[in-house]
Amino acid sequence: MKPDYASIYRKELLENIVPFWMKNSLDKKHGGYYHHFDRDGSVFCTDKMMWLQHREVWMFSRLYNLLEKRGEWLDAARLGAEFLRDHGRDENGDWYFLLSETGEPLTVPYNIFSDTFAVIAYLEYGKATGEGWAFDIAKASFKRVQERAGNPKGKWEKRLPAARKAVEHSFPMIMFSVTRELAKAFGKEYGASSDSYLKTIFDKLVDWKTGLLYEYAMPDGSRPQGPAGRLINPGHAIESAWFILEYAREIGNEELIKKSVKILNAAFEIGWDKKYKGLLYFIDTEGKPPMQLEWDMKLWWPHTEALYAFLLAYDTLGDKELGKRHKMIHDYCWKHFRDPKYGEWFGYLNREGKPSLMLKGGRFKCFFHTPRALLNSILLLEKK
Amino acid sequence: MKPDYASIYRKELLENIVPFWMKNSLDKKHGGYYHHFDRDGSVFCTDKMMWLQHREVWMFSRLYNLLEKRGEWLDAARLGAEFLRDHGRDENGDWYFLLSETGEPLTVPYNIFSDTFAVIAYLEYGKATGEGWAFDIAKASFKRVQERAGNPKGKWEKRLPAARKAVEHSFPMIMFSVTRELAKAFGKEYGASSDSYLKTIFDKLVDWKTGLLYEYAMPDGSRPQGPAGRLINPGHAIESAWFILEYAREIGNEELIKKSVKILNAAFEIGWDKKYKGLLYFIDTEGKPPMQLEWDMKLWWPHTEALYAFLLAYDTLGDKELGKRHKMIHDYCWKHFRDPKYGEWFGYLNREGKPSLMLKGGRFKCFFHTPRALLNSILLLEKK
Repeated sequence: MKPDYASIYRKELLENIVPFWMKNSLDKKHGGYYHHFDRDGSVFCTDKMMWLQHREVWMFSRLYNLLEKRGEWLDAARLGAEFLRDHGRDENGDWYFLLSETGEPLTVPYNIFSDTFAVIAYLEYGKATGEGWAFDIAKASFKRVQERAGNPKGKWEKRLPAARKAVEHSFPMIMFSVTRELAKAFGKEYGASSDSYLKTIFDKLVDWKTGLLYEYAMPDGSRPQGPAGRLINPGHAIESAWFILEYAREIGNEELIKKSVKILNAAFEIGWDKKYKGLLYFIDTEGKPPMQLEWDMKLWWPHTEALYAFLLAYDTLGDKELGKRHKMIHDYCWKHFRDPKYGEWFGYLNREGKPSLMLKGGRFKCFFHTPRALLNSILLLEKK
Repeated sequence: MKPDYASIYRKELLENIVPFWMKNSLDKKHGGYYHHFDRDGSVFCTDKMMWLQHREVWMFSRLYNLLEKRGEWLDAARLGAEFLRDHGRDENGDWYFLLSETGEPLTVPYNIFSDTFAVIAYLEYGKATGEGWAFDIAKASFKRVQERAGNPKGKWEKRLPAARKAVEHSFPMIMFSVTRELAKAFGKEYGASSDSYLKTIFDKLVDWKTGLLYEYAMPDGSRPQGPAGRLINPGHAIESAWFILEYAREIGNEELIKKSVKILNAAFEIGWDKKYKGLLYFIDTEGKPPMQLEWDMKLWWPHTEALYAFLLAYDTLGDKELGKRHKMIHDYCWKHFRDPKYGEWFGYLNREGKPSLMLKGGRFKCFFHTPRALLNSILLLEKK
């Protein structure tokens, strides 16, 4: 009998993940969120990283907007939204990378992804509260992203022109998603560039013979010299694939559906560890040594991305192999990532699938990938 | 019977390590060195990182100066020294972080350690060749290091003042070593600051109750908030310990000998993996999650540093436990790091001691730690 995934995911989200963050993350004294947690939820660092703060505002707002109108979730979103509004930006409106517990800026605004996450955070928060100031911040942050796009790191750019020729996957990927969200809220002109980001991914970064979505490409679509030119981040490609698949479903484009599923399957096939199961973190397509020491670790987020991506692909095409892959990921997550003792999920397993770091939250792991995948899966499964 | 370590190390250096780099590393077409090698010595990236280029100039010069006057070693040193002289610096004389194969600068000079390695590279090369221009570069680079020391990253500094209060181990550690080398070559005034770097390490970074040498401390000697305040890099502490021990032997200071060996033993005791042997890469002193995903890997360089450090400590004090620790490290290296099939040493093992990356050279692994430890050990053992 097929497991009742809708119930499993609803229970996991509402009885495990959300309560962990509601209990441990909210800094009611200073505002904002703690996000460095040891296995038991105790805080081991009080720094507040911008990406993670914005993502938590987004996630609580999203839960409120799409799952249930729980006042405590809105309060939790407000705790971050107001703290960041008051402490998060420099005089240009650019978002710092890191704040202290009390909101003192610790790291300059060199990372434009902070700003892209601010856009979706304040957009979602604005939808939840109807507060115009939140939409204003979303729009202003988006404007700054557009202004800075040509040289996102500004004066903190360390690469000289000869080293900056490659096209990177991250930026068009996130901007494809952000511009679509903006267009839905504020009208088409905000989504005007959406197709061009997709075109960059398709024309430069995907090898259509194999379906492999690379992290870097030269502007002519050729492979850069060295490890960067051979680098696949399976989780990242899988995340992009479902962004594109959702869009393809919305506009009913079957060709685009097929392309996104081709990317998804190629990423899974190159990333899946046939020896120990789970998705490897980085792959060199020619089998040369990756530069990332953590290349063979199993991280939570590629798996949560894959969990929803294969569910969505299976829902779209009904292909049994897609359903089987969803189950492989699901079983791996439930066996290895969930912590039945202290709740939430481990983030970092070694290749064999044993926790290598016991943390539940850190510099990257926050209230985002796991609850987003569960929420998306619930909405997909329950709409029937 | 005690192994004949002098012969073993001489054979390892001259019949395994040096031939690998002589064969694979020298870029006779463009100058400089390749240093990204797959298991069999094939080049998998042609970028030339400044730290590694300088270290290779230093190492070939050092072998020539201290082991044998082989012309091929001097030629190898010259290949790097002249390439870097011609391509390595910006208009201020600061060293770029990364060059392309042909010497085109790829990354700005944001990293002052490039400059400290330039000092010792050109100093050693100058000693080998007697060429005045090399000494001039060593002196000029040292001058720039002194000028930049207050704000080493210059305009590329991302940390705001509130985040820059901590004292870091790396800088006083390398400067203690560099200023001592300079003083020996050019006279006392170059070594004037040497004692103040040692004082910083002793007064701020070492906890004398335990002997633990931390990576970060607050200016008043207290522990910084979060993981930085609890971070031990055993290999780094061990390397510092033998820098200090060599100095203590030179000046015949028994108190200083004891202190350096206390640091050495404390780093070994907290770093040694009782379950799988070998030295762990990073340790949180309170057992909280380290921020480095690679924390439980076994890297070659902490082991090569420990190999020489314990040999030196045993030679100094004759304490059997120190000899035993040298043997533990030696046996681990010979069992796990050496590659009998393709030569040289693996750099990156997983916790269990199996190679996780097959590379023989990469962004950090170069012609430095292993040959330096072997050379130092040979010189120590053969002087008797």
